[in-house]
Amino acid sequence: MSETTAPPASAELAARARKLDAADELAGKRAEFVLDEVIYLDGNSLGALPAAVPGRMADVITRQWGELRIRSWDESGWWTAPERIGDRIAPLIGAAPGQVVVGDSTSVNVFKALVAAVRMAGDGRDEIVVDATTFPTDGYIARSAARMTGCTLRPVTPAEVPDVLGPRTAVVLLNHADYRTGRLHDLPSLTSAVHAAGALAVWDLCHTAGALPVGVDEHGVDLAVGCTYKYLNGGPGSPAYLYVRRDLQDRFDSPLPGWNSHVEPFGMHGDYEPARGAPRGRVGTPDILSMLALEAALEVWDGVSVEAVRAKSLALTDFFLECVAEYVEPGRVESLTPAAHEERGSQVALCCDDAGDVMKRLIERGVVGDFRPPNLLRFGFTPLYVGFADVERAARVLGEVVG
Amino acid sequence: MSETTAPPASAELAARARKLDAADELAGKRAEFVLDEVIYLDGNSLGALPAAVPGRMADVITRQWGELRIRSWDESGWWTAPERIGDRIAPLIGAAPGQVVVGDSTSVNVFKALVAAVRMAGDGRDEIVVDATTFPTDGYIARSAARMTGCTLRPVTPAEVPDVLGPRTAVVLLNHADYRTGRLHDLPSLTSAVHAAGALAVWDLCHTAGALPVGVDEHGVDLAVGCTYKYLNGGPGSPAYLYVRRDLQDRFDSPLPGWNSHVEPFGMHGDYEPARGAPRGRVGTPDILSMLALEAALEVWDGVSVEAVRAKSLALTDFFLECVAEYVEPGRVESLTPAAHEERGSQVALCCDDAGDVMKRLIERGVVGDFRPPNLLRFGFTPLYVGFADVERAARVLGEVVG
Repeated sequence: MSETTAPPASAELAARARKLDAADELAGKRAEFVLDEVIYLDGNSLGALPAAVPGRMADVITRQWGELRIRSWDESGWWTAPERIGDRIAPLIGAAPGQVVVGDSTSVNVFKALVAAVRMAGDGRDEIVVDATTFPTDGYIARSAARMTGCTLRPVTPAEVPDVLGPRTAVVLLNHADYRTGRLHDLPSLTSAVHAAGALAVWDLCHTAGALPVGVDEHGVDLAVGCTYKYLNGGPGSPAYLYVRRDLQDRFDSPLPGWNSHVEPFGMHGDYEPARGAPRGRVGTPDILSMLALEAALEVWDGVSVEAVRAKSLALTDFFLECVAEYVEPGRVESLTPAAHEERGSQVALCCDDAGDVMKRLIERGVVGDFRPPNLLRFGFTPLYVGFADVERAARVLGEVVG
Repeated sequence: MSETTAPPASAELAARARKLDAADELAGKRAEFVLDEVIYLDGNSLGALPAAVPGRMADVITRQWGELRIRSWDESGWWTAPERIGDRIAPLIGAAPGQVVVGDSTSVNVFKALVAAVRMAGDGRDEIVVDATTFPTDGYIARSAARMTGCTLRPVTPAEVPDVLGPRTAVVLLNHADYRTGRLHDLPSLTSAVHAAGALAVWDLCHTAGALPVGVDEHGVDLAVGCTYKYLNGGPGSPAYLYVRRDLQDRFDSPLPGWNSHVEPFGMHGDYEPARGAPRGRVGTPDILSMLALEAALEVWDGVSVEAVRAKSLALTDFFLECVAEYVEPGRVESLTPAAHEERGSQVALCCDDAGDVMKRLIERGVVGDFRPPNLLRFGFTPLYVGFADVERAARVLGEVVG
């Protein structure tokens, strides 16, 4: 091929995308989602609809609720859903069975985890350290947990965490990935540092579960929480989950000891005696419709390894950054997402002054990401349903929109 | 009609039932539910499926989530659902708009209400009084709220409440109806007594909302909580609600200040500033599937007055007790439900030694109530879909089963 007939960059990138898609071992998973011509790069906010969900929910509503009614608490497995679905999430975050329970919102689970952690921490430990760059709710709830347990709240950046740990540190609440920049924090080393100081580590996995290996058991994470509506595709506001490491479960002393966490919930005892194991993290009656939609959504993970998802995620974000560099005028947008793989989650955050307007035009052109004020374009890459051709087109449209 | 041809009791009662059904102004509502030949007297545990729900949920899942995806937070009104559905529940409990918010479980809302009430109570008020006969979760959560606010928990029967109130009482948590016996407690006079002592009253309306007028505004209730899956038919584990009286809202200081309760939730501010009004009771991302099923379920209340529901409820429970007296051998079962209307909720609790076995046989015969150990048969009467012929047949089958 002579220099004069060299294809333009777009043809070359489009051809690369086709090859990458053809070689993608996860490509077949896309058919398990309801998708259209829109390029959906907002799965880090709300995952796309798994195709199994509508039929399952029709059965849950019409037969389980409508026909079996109250019998479904036993016969349709409603009562045990929080632990059963927890065990379905467990392998995705590297947890052995019996340590994850589904229910409530992430905020409520942050509260349970932090208060319980303070109660497990030794005497004289009266400081809660929290990621100052966190998604706000974690900081608000941490402040409340500190206030209600007589602790001091210490907000610092994740990088500063090792320096502020000490004999007064009870617990550290960290995000595995920054919700704005997509930066991945070093869970193993930060957890080790927290443990070396004699404190407990609580991780918020909202932006990593289902996108990359977490390894909560392997790295000795004490407690963790996460939502299920991003990379786990559980549906709008689907219930969150709580992980409590097995050897801490007997000491897990919940600030929300609802009847579902009683050792014998139907005994209707006036005195509270907590259940053993994961159910100790339950509170009230589980929200069955949302919970069973999540359960159906998790079936797309059958036969999928999180390692394969991570490999594809990195390939997608690498390719996106490459395409953006090609299609977008230099200096027009700036990536806040780390170039190093070990510091990158599954999203790319691009900074530009007119980000709100740019995202509006992208959406009009069928490329859906989201805008975080004041100047951030966020693009989430869900390896189960986003392909390389999507990525190339998204970057190309971005280039046209900002051109 | 001569004495010798007098119809047997069953024919007379069945004829009465037909007349009562024919005159029932709520009879048409039955068609708005999915019902079968089963006589469902367990709506005080899980309400029957409203016919509008399956179609609505198919649209919510397939179109709102599946097609609009993230856009539905605005375009499908997801974000404002907690307040919007709260305002739909409000008239059913006698609340003006803007005071009820839907979300979380009853247990979590009890925690919010009690902690906020303690914070609103004056100095030196460090006692939480709780109904000792309550559904257990309220007692467990009240104990946790007391522990976390430095209060003492004082469990007493509702009858004893006026005697224990004093200058140290911060808040009193009461159930409007006893979940076991169906006894209705005197909300107006107990609330007055609590107020006379300078304390706040929190009412749990799980067993009365949708069954009888509550009048939270009229009677000056301070805070209230309730589930939505009993007489409100919201579906298994559907979200609970929180009522905060308007003039207390600015002082409502939530122990669970999640980002949804921020005055500007999408500002992503590090500092917490609470929203005004009902949204202050929100916590995390609302559970949209369960919430919109509830919204569809609440449409059955269009054109229904709670007063008419109450009148029918009393007529149903009166008729049931009359039929039981006729069909069941004297002394075989004993009613724990008060005979006086003003002390009766919308359920009848019958006591007998072999209640577990009796309920099993009733269910086999198509009459569904529930069993509460050790010796209680519970029958709930939902006036929107239970008729007088159902009641007559249920009592007749009970007579046969225990005969």
